[in-house]
Amino acid sequence: MSKTERIRGVLSPVVTPFQADGSVDLAKFVAQCRWLLSNDVGLAFLGTNSEANSLSPSERLRMMDALLEAGVNPGSMMPGTGACDLPTAVDLSRKAARAGCAGVLTLPPFYYKGVSDEGLFRYFSELIERVAENTLRVYLYHIPPVAQVGISLDLIERLLERYPENIAGIKDSSGDWNNMLAMLERFKGRNFDVFPGSEVFLLQGMRHGAVGCISATANVNPAAIHRLFVEWQSPEADELQNGLNTVRSLFQQFPMIPALKAAVAHWSGDAQWHRVRPPLVELNAQQRESLISQLVAQGFSMEGLNETASQL
Amino acid sequence: MSKTERIRGVLSPVVTPFQADGSVDLAKFVAQCRWLLSNDVGLAFLGTNSEANSLSPSERLRMMDALLEAGVNPGSMMPGTGACDLPTAVDLSRKAARAGCAGVLTLPPFYYKGVSDEGLFRYFSELIERVAENTLRVYLYHIPPVAQVGISLDLIERLLERYPENIAGIKDSSGDWNNMLAMLERFKGRNFDVFPGSEVFLLQGMRHGAVGCISATANVNPAAIHRLFVEWQSPEADELQNGLNTVRSLFQQFPMIPALKAAVAHWSGDAQWHRVRPPLVELNAQQRESLISQLVAQGFSMEGLNETASQL
Repeated sequence: MSKTERIRGVLSPVVTPFQADGSVDLAKFVAQCRWLLSNDVGLAFLGTNSEANSLSPSERLRMMDALLEAGVNPGSMMPGTGACDLPTAVDLSRKAARAGCAGVLTLPPFYYKGVSDEGLFRYFSELIERVAENTLRVYLYHIPPVAQVGISLDLIERLLERYPENIAGIKDSSGDWNNMLAMLERFKGRNFDVFPGSEVFLLQGMRHGAVGCISATANVNPAAIHRLFVEWQSPEADELQNGLNTVRSLFQQFPMIPALKAAVAHWSGDAQWHRVRPPLVELNAQQRESLISQLVAQGFSMEGLNETASQL
Repeated sequence: MSKTERIRGVLSPVVTPFQADGSVDLAKFVAQCRWLLSNDVGLAFLGTNSEANSLSPSERLRMMDALLEAGVNPGSMMPGTGACDLPTAVDLSRKAARAGCAGVLTLPPFYYKGVSDEGLFRYFSELIERVAENTLRVYLYHIPPVAQVGISLDLIERLLERYPENIAGIKDSSGDWNNMLAMLERFKGRNFDVFPGSEVFLLQGMRHGAVGCISATANVNPAAIHRLFVEWQSPEADELQNGLNTVRSLFQQFPMIPALKAAVAHWSGDAQWHRVRPPLVELNAQQRESLISQLVAQGFSMEGLNETASQL
């Protein structure tokens, strides 16, 4: 894979559908991924919003297999392959690299807190060396509000110096524009791609060299976010950004993952989508009604989702 | 297992030995467990100090198997079986319950932060119901400094009401005496066993109804901690507690897990014990020298460890 073939644009941390017995509904998952692709959004499945850490390593492998077996283009995929334990992270990342996935999104090990950059360097270093695939493209996942363990600029520098071919970029879910700007400036021209972790920073990010965004709400508002990615230099860009922010703010009134699933459930007409795994809890009826009615009042809808569901 | 057969006393979150290739050294692990048992300390292996979350689910299963196949009494075992994902936690816990382990020590799912008690209740509830073994004894693991997700008193109350046979107790590693005292008082007479997560609270805990402790430093100072457990009502108890505190404070000058391993490496004469998995980092030469010389100056040693190592 040459450097020019790097994945760019808007990616969705695809929400994961569960069956009545709690297992992953693979057919529904694949259909949802196809709907996202039809809206020009790539697949950062097995992310935070996918409840990936609530899935076992073997469930995660099966989800990767399901997409590959369905013939989905691996060039559109950036699965989350991070784990607190290296053997699991290596297994998942190796599988993704061998399958030709555009990249892997890797959390730092997040159980121990206050760990050193030296320890994190060793973790990512061992991950890359054990996977031992030239095609491995690692996107570091910086999400301190959740993982509590972050990726410092000095750690990126050290990893980029040692593994310039494998360290491809970062998803920055810090919510801190100054951190994103610092990364964009420090690693400019180093072939290190920065994806803000929210479309709220899409326009500002693109204006400073970001390559797209990977955002929870790309699950529900993919076409509009992709449009801003394409038209960020147009005169309407600020207006498009404001529209995205309005939709996102409606979701942010509620716990994000159950809210995303409530929207998918509503517009697909499939109540199964409400299901989440513990420790998450689905929205209650009042919350659902409040979310959907506010979205409808804004003229929001998820077009084509109903047809996708009916094809299953 | 009747209520009177509950495990009590001092348990060690057994440190995990790694081979040169990074894999778990199962023979050495079993030998270390035997040494701890010979010092009257039980086996809370696969805990935080065991780097359990840096081990894959299959590695954790193999460690349980190794002890069972070696004929170690499962009544002395309280393996850590928690995981962010329920399928893994269920697998590990079911295996432990079926093997007759005294209990399982279960972390809450620790990736998502700020989760509700309702979500945690569902997690533990699903764990217990899916394991579906009468012999399952769950010890909740409250370690907010690391997991960030804690176990509230109201959550315990709710779990205890619903699963009085399965919810057996808690390890409280909050480091907060007031929390331990609140639990001891609120659940007195409810057959809910409280293990302070450090021997610093052993004497105070025993005086208020605790049943022992599960402590990092039981890896290195098992006999002395066990002695206080036995003699807590003797006139020397406060003096014994002070002695334990002194030893612990020497270890606490350094990152705990590498420091424990440095002591085991020194007294076993086996440098392999220094190895840790990323993101942890072993002590450097200066730190090791500082730790060991201070321990020796206090008259500390790990008796019999050398013979254990030589029997491998």
